[in-house]
Order: sequence, then structure tokens, then C-alpha cells
Amino acid sequence: KVIWTLLVTILGSASSLPVGDDSICTAEELAKYSITFTGKWSQTAFPKQYPLYRPPAQWSSMLGVTHSSDYSMWKKNEYASNGVRDFAEKGEAWVLMKEIEEAGEKIQSVHGIFSAPAISSGTGQTSTELEVHPRHPLVSFVVRIVPSPDWFVGIDSLNLCKGDHWMEDVSVDLFPYDAGTDSGFTFSSPNFATIPQDTVTEITCSSPSHPANSFYYPKLKILPPIAQVTLVKIKKNQLGLSAPYFNLPAKSNEVIDSIS
Amino acid sequence: KVIWTLLVTILGSASSLPVGDDSICTAEELAKYSITFTGKWSQTAFPKQYPLYRPPAQWSSMLGVTHSSDYSMWKKNEYASNGVRDFAEKGEAWVLMKEIEEAGEKIQSVHGIFSAPAISSGTGQTSTELEVHPRHPLVSFVVRIVPSPDWFVGIDSLNLCKGDHWMEDVSVDLFPYDAGTDSGFTFSSPNFATIPQDTVTEITCSSPSHPANSFYYPKLKILPPIAQVTLVKIKKNQLGLSAPYFNLPAKSNEVIDSIS
Repeated sequence: KVIWTLLVTILGSASSLPVGDDSICTAEELAKYSITFTGKWSQTAFPKQYPLYRPPAQWSSMLGVTHSSDYSMWKKNEYASNGVRDFAEKGEAWVLMKEIEEAGEKIQSVHGIFSAPAISSGTGQTSTELEVHPRHPLVSFVVRIVPSPDWFVGIDSLNLCKGDHWMEDVSVDLFPYDAGTDSGFTFSSPNFATIPQDTVTEITCSSPSHPANSFYYPKLKILPPIAQVTLVKIKKNQLGLSAPYFNLPAKSNEVIDSIS
Repeated sequence: KVIWTLLVTILGSASSLPVGDDSICTAEELAKYSITFTGKWSQTAFPKQYPLYRPPAQWSSMLGVTHSSDYSMWKKNEYASNGVRDFAEKGEAWVLMKEIEEAGEKIQSVHGIFSAPAISSGTGQTSTELEVHPRHPLVSFVVRIVPSPDWFVGIDSLNLCKGDHWMEDVSVDLFPYDAGTDSGFTFSSPNFATIPQDTVTEITCSSPSHPANSFYYPKLKILPPIAQVTLVKIKKNQLGLSAPYFNLPAKSNEVIDSIS
């Protein structure tokens, strides 16, 4: 019996080892990044059922966290937490903020929380800054698609540390996800709870495979990115000089190709 | 003529001296605070024309800045900047963020920018953290009242430094302001630009003095606070320990008295 207990303990430990490579980050202690979110949800790129009124297409606040691999804000094919559900369905951040705080207190898996203002149209930009640490080099965030049943875009556990240094900059195209908690098919579907709750799934041009779905474009192979996020490392403040530590890029006027 | 020029120069300098007492802050180099915004915009407290649908009463993201007295985000009885106008009218933060960035670059009057997620109802809380510096001890922020023509709540240049130390905590009741850029009288008034632009004015229970106004309660002496903000100093991180540096209070379930 003692042997079995030991074996279970070992297996238990093994299964909770970090899955990312953040355990070998030997970069300098802290790094600051600007993070800029660019909405690309235009009527040209996504003509089907594009929301024009009450509310028109827009993006919620961004809510994000820097953390170790012991914390996960959300993950594809896993169940959304209550906090992610509230945020994806209603843009209500409080429960998610408390979940993050609890993970920080109980298992020291969180370094900090960050937020950027909402964007009042489908295309536009918002920005903030964040701080990472060798033991907490991962970045996750969510931005709710408004209006929608429970759809969001985001990043899950992006590692900004590469061995002994921090990445200078990184851009990621974003695609829509369904939080699995509301069964609406279209941007403006009425609330209809998914019971039992489903896992977080990526929404593609062919899945859910139903013509009523707002992102169903049977002629496409893949959806164009509905948003993009760019992280740029900020140079260190020098000796207590209070240089402003944010660094907004010029607003992009990039033309978005039509996919229709 | 030389004398007059000199006099004008002296007067000019005098009028641009810091009006706060931030020029004599001798507190330790940096201080971090949690900032928690509590919406108190309930139908009980503000029954008149309370917005229930499309959209129901809610609060935008919070956008704030820590700065010296050389910068002003907004000020009562002065004209709102283009950035504050965009934010107060539409919740669009980009122009205001660029204005803050420019003030930081050109005259080093800004230490940092901060943001907290939107609140999807009239009562609720949101939170983030901010950093102040002896040369930049002032805090300003804005939160848009949604829906509304161009109404917001906020703080203008709150000084967190008291001589040689940083304040431990401070709470401020918030009341509605009109940005002076849209002539709507009620929460859901259609857009109607104020030309020429008016200054930022406080909205009270008797001003604007017109029964159509959403905050016109002739039986009251003063409006109840529509929101409240609390800042609490965060203990310093110890020797590179990455303790989570945010600190959310428990969600308040405070009962709000009716004023009707």
C-alpha cells in the first residue's frame, strides 16, 4: 500500500510538471511589454449577419494575466471557468478577476493582471502594458466579441521567454472561439444556456456546420483573422527616471481584404 | 516695454506653477495602489429614465493616468480635449491614449496609464492597479456613463502624496459630469453636437435646470453619489518575489438608499 501511494504521488507530480518550456527561462528578472489589440472585424471581411445596430459590432475590454504553467485562463477543448463564462457571455470581468487573484494567492502561479479599454467598433485598436517574470513568462487574455452569445478571441499561455532572453516582439492572428456555455448560433441570438456545458471550441468557416452560423462561409478554406495582437518589449526605465512606460504604435489604417 | 514683457513673463510663470502640492513630495520613490471603482447607478437610487434595454445602464472601461501638475486629463469648467470627447461620447479610448502618450513624451508630465474592465450593469465593481512617483503623484481617470450623450464620472488630479509619505487609502464619491460636446438631455438622447463646444460641467439634481434632464430631481438637495472609487496602497514586493501585485476587495453588496 505504501508503494502504491508513492507511485501515485510520483505520477501525480509528473502529470503536474509544466507543459510549456517556462521552467527553463533564464532571462533577466523582469520585462515589460506593450500589448496592442487590433480588431479586424469589418463588414467587408465578415459580411454575413454583420451587426450594425444595438449594439453594432465591437470589442469588450481586454482582460489578461501573466502567469506560470500552473495557471490556465482558458484552453481549447477544456471547460471554461465561471469567470470566463461571465466574461464571454456578458463582458463581466469581476469573477474572472477573482479567479486570477485566487490563483495568485494560493499557488503563486500569477504575476499580474492587465486590462485595456474596450473598442467601440469592429475595427480599431486598444493597448496597454504588461510585465513578465522568468517564473511567470506566459501571457493569456480574452476579449469578448460584442454582440455574440459567448464568443471571444484570446491567447492561451503565449511564452515570451526564449531560453536566456525575452522576445523583442511577437504578433499573433486571432480567430473566434465559443466558450461552450450559450447555445446561440448568431451574433444576436437570445441567451440560451448550454446544459450540460460544452468545452471551448474554435469557430471556423465550416464548424459549427450549419448555414445559420454567423461565421459559416462554405466557400472559404479558413476564416480571415478577426483580430490581431502584437506584443513589443519596452526598454527599461533608467535609474528611476519616470519615462512613460507605455508605447502606443500609430493607429493602423491597414486595408482588410474581402473574403466574400 | 521691456518691463511689461518681464511682468507678463512673471505672471505667465506664476499662473503655470503647480496648483497641487506635488512639487514638494518627498515620499519614497514608487508606490503601487489598487484602484477599485464601484458603480452605484441603481434604478432605486436613480429611478428617472433608468435605462433598462439596448443598452441597459452600465459603465465603460476605466481609463486613467498618473501624472504631474503639468498635465491635466480633464477639468471642471474647462474645455474637454478631443480624446475626452471621444471617450465620453463613444467610449473610444484611442485618441485619449495618444494624447496621454504625447504629454508623456513632450513634457514628461505622465508616469503611466492604467485601465480597468467595463462593468456590464449600473451597480458592480471593477479594479486594476497603478503606480505613482514623487514627481508624478497625481491620479486622474474617466469612466463613461452608458448610455448617455457625453456624460462621465472621474477624478481630476487627486494627489496621493502627503509630504514625505504616500496615503494608505482614500475613497472618493463620484458625481456625473457633462463633457460639453453633445447637447443630449437624457440617457438615450440621439447624438446632437454642441457647437460651439461647451466646457465640462457637473450635472446636479437642479442643473441643467430642465425637467427633461435625466438627473433632474427637484425635491433633492444633492444627488446621491452615482459611483465611488477607492485607492489602497499595495505593500512592496519583496526581493524579486513575484507576489501578485493586485489586491481585489470582496465584492460589495452594500444596500443603496432610495432617493425618490
